[in-house]
Amino acid sequence: MEPRPAAPRPRLCDSLGADQTLSASTLNAARAEARPAGRRAPAVAAVLPAGGSGERMGVPTPKQFCPVLERPLISYTLQALERVCWIKDIVVAVTGENMEAMKGIIQKYQHQRISLVEAGVTRHRSIFNGLKALAEDQPDSKLSKPEVVIIHDAVRPFVEEDVLLKVVTAAKEYGAAGAIRPLVSTVISPSADGCLDHSLERARHRASEMPQAFLFDVIYEAYQQCSDYDLEFGTECLQLALKYGHIKAKLVEGSPDLWKVTYKRDLYAAESIIKERISQHICLIMDTKDENHVGHRLEEVLKDELNHVKVTSRLPCHTGRDLDQIVSEQCYSYVCVNVMTSDFEEIRKLVNMLEESNLSILYPVVVISVYFLDYKSVPFDQKMENLMQIREYAKEVKKRNILLCGLLIYYPQDEQKLQESLRQGATIIATLIKERNSGLVGQLLVA
Amino acid sequence: MEPRPAAPRPRLCDSLGADQTLSASTLNAARAEARPAGRRAPAVAAVLPAGGSGERMGVPTPKQFCPVLERPLISYTLQALERVCWIKDIVVAVTGENMEAMKGIIQKYQHQRISLVEAGVTRHRSIFNGLKALAEDQPDSKLSKPEVVIIHDAVRPFVEEDVLLKVVTAAKEYGAAGAIRPLVSTVISPSADGCLDHSLERARHRASEMPQAFLFDVIYEAYQQCSDYDLEFGTECLQLALKYGHIKAKLVEGSPDLWKVTYKRDLYAAESIIKERISQHICLIMDTKDENHVGHRLEEVLKDELNHVKVTSRLPCHTGRDLDQIVSEQCYSYVCVNVMTSDFEEIRKLVNMLEESNLSILYPVVVISVYFLDYKSVPFDQKMENLMQIREYAKEVKKRNILLCGLLIYYPQDEQKLQESLRQGATIIATLIKERNSGLVGQLLVA
Repeated sequence: MEPRPAAPRPRLCDSLGADQTLSASTLNAARAEARPAGRRAPAVAAVLPAGGSGERMGVPTPKQFCPVLERPLISYTLQALERVCWIKDIVVAVTGENMEAMKGIIQKYQHQRISLVEAGVTRHRSIFNGLKALAEDQPDSKLSKPEVVIIHDAVRPFVEEDVLLKVVTAAKEYGAAGAIRPLVSTVISPSADGCLDHSLERARHRASEMPQAFLFDVIYEAYQQCSDYDLEFGTECLQLALKYGHIKAKLVEGSPDLWKVTYKRDLYAAESIIKERISQHICLIMDTKDENHVGHRLEEVLKDELNHVKVTSRLPCHTGRDLDQIVSEQCYSYVCVNVMTSDFEEIRKLVNMLEESNLSILYPVVVISVYFLDYKSVPFDQKMENLMQIREYAKEVKKRNILLCGLLIYYPQDEQKLQESLRQGATIIATLIKERNSGLVGQLLVA
Repeated sequence: MEPRPAAPRPRLCDSLGADQTLSASTLNAARAEARPAGRRAPAVAAVLPAGGSGERMGVPTPKQFCPVLERPLISYTLQALERVCWIKDIVVAVTGENMEAMKGIIQKYQHQRISLVEAGVTRHRSIFNGLKALAEDQPDSKLSKPEVVIIHDAVRPFVEEDVLLKVVTAAKEYGAAGAIRPLVSTVISPSADGCLDHSLERARHRASEMPQAFLFDVIYEAYQQCSDYDLEFGTECLQLALKYGHIKAKLVEGSPDLWKVTYKRDLYAAESIIKERISQHICLIMDTKDENHVGHRLEEVLKDELNHVKVTSRLPCHTGRDLDQIVSEQCYSYVCVNVMTSDFEEIRKLVNMLEESNLSILYPVVVISVYFLDYKSVPFDQKMENLMQIREYAKEVKKRNILLCGLLIYYPQDEQKLQESLRQGATIIATLIKERNSGLVGQLLVA
């Protein structure tokens, strides 16, 4: 068993799609319903087999380590588990050759409550190693035996607290539980000569997905009893609980998001889903309170064009309270509307605050600095020269995963043309936020 | 049965991933191996049920009509089938309410050899309607009964000629054949109370995918015999051939690309795959033969940075022969390196040629106009003013699905800085080609 990496510095939990306060109380409430009031919630740990080679992906890197928005896939899965506060320990089984890389990932992305064990040569052996680490009372181990253990895949990053709670609650009652999904394709059984023997009725079968949960003693005893053949060729933990523990697992309907990243196309899909999720909120920062200013009209156009996106606006960030708010809102897209100046002071303050917030450790944060070109205040040439400085500054902040671009919006007198400019500006903002591509940092775009 | 839409104007077949000359002869060769020499290749038609409502997608539009790069998914599937020249007819079953939309798609994307029939309320009924249209000798129908019929899904756009050939050849020999894939998840059978009854051994089962192929008489007779229950609740054509025709279908291992677009994430994956495929070739157009010019250094850097992409270079396009070459190369990404001028003449000529080629009917074509800023020839201001005109012109050509951007590359005397400029230029080019996002057309980017 590997020692834990050094504890990362404190960080507020990520709250994308999960509210921990709610969750902990929901768990207690759910438990309270099924059992006499006053009983404590079960101690829960999770085991994550991550020793696979990813041969189906057609790439040399095992799929759990493939980058998605430049971060390894497994880090998203760890994030999904660790933001659920009632999961006390997360045991990850990785091969010896990936052990150092895994430690690096835990440190870089500040994952918490993770312990590493060495993977076995098959999935079942890896899970067994994870369970052993939880079961054994080693003197130097901080792990303790949980009442319920969740088994999940490293390559299912979109698991929600909701389904974790459901399988844990069902495992407590039934001894074992697992998420299922309807079949997408008909399943058939081939004969030895490669022809159709029979096809299975689709409505009577389900795909067994992850997460699954078990009373720890049930699954640990099953693994202790099971044969080498099971450990080598088996794939289904629910089947082991049935075969050796005589436990009929409760099946829980899961969401489509539980799907397993298996092929290259799944990596593409995962990246698109993550990009979409972190682009659902745009924070506009205005350096004026003047309600009639064109900056507020830009806000209206943005709300109009991006009607699935939450657009909020606020004054510039200067205080510690502003920082707290930025951290708690978990917004990854900022549009700084500079009405009063064409320098970078406000942008610098925002970027400093974003750095302090650690938001960009997990996801690239887009910052778009918007200027209006109204042909009167500052002369064009001087303004342009100021703005071209954005390139150097953008290069610098890109190192901290902050993607900075400039946007210059023409401000013609003609009302209709202005509306057109604003609409084009909104399209460019939407594109930069959606694509979140580091190749365009430092550019000054024109609407 | 709906009349065919007006024949589209002639167009060269799309050759993405399929070579027709090869295919036709391969089919003959494959046939010749299995049967006495000299026998003709079988007459082949395809039926495409496209009446589904796409409820699993969670969007109101049926998934086969969902846009991928602004083109409906079904159009990609039709394209994949029609580029296989030995498929004589493609019968698509669509619901009455989508009939007009479907005709519009066929016309807009110039699909060929398509006939439309009305879909039934279930998948089986839609297929049956398609088969009837092929079987019946209607006086005004141009369809004739094929020897072999392919059944495919409207939502599997990445079907390759190779697997079509395999199922057709096997159907000729066995009477029925279908593509299969290994199972990604374990399949289980639930009991009535929602618990695990048993799990199926994964190695003994396969997912039945599409395409499938049948001797026409075998599958048509099966449909004529089958019960209302089969037509309402069945999903598997191979099963009908087994049940009513006593034909054990030959199973053919398919590639992962055969997967069915089912959920929203699959649309994301499809879009990424298509973007990747049409970005595999970049054509550089140089307005100078001077081998020592910086334009050729840009070419080297591009080849270096994009080592999975084919980068070719050529002189400007002016003649009919140039047009033929553009059409035959099916390249969707152009980088125009303007060394001699800062006007748009070369770009206009290229864009005109692209329009004539009809390439942008199927995919957005990216054109990047590159200029070097060497601080000596043309004064900066004048050059910039010229280049800002790109915005208006880009708006115009965007209507024809051509995405035009400008790129200004600094050309410092310092060798190391020049190399840096070129590398940044290559990154921007790669980003614009990869993202292929219309939100950035007309921008003048700076490297």
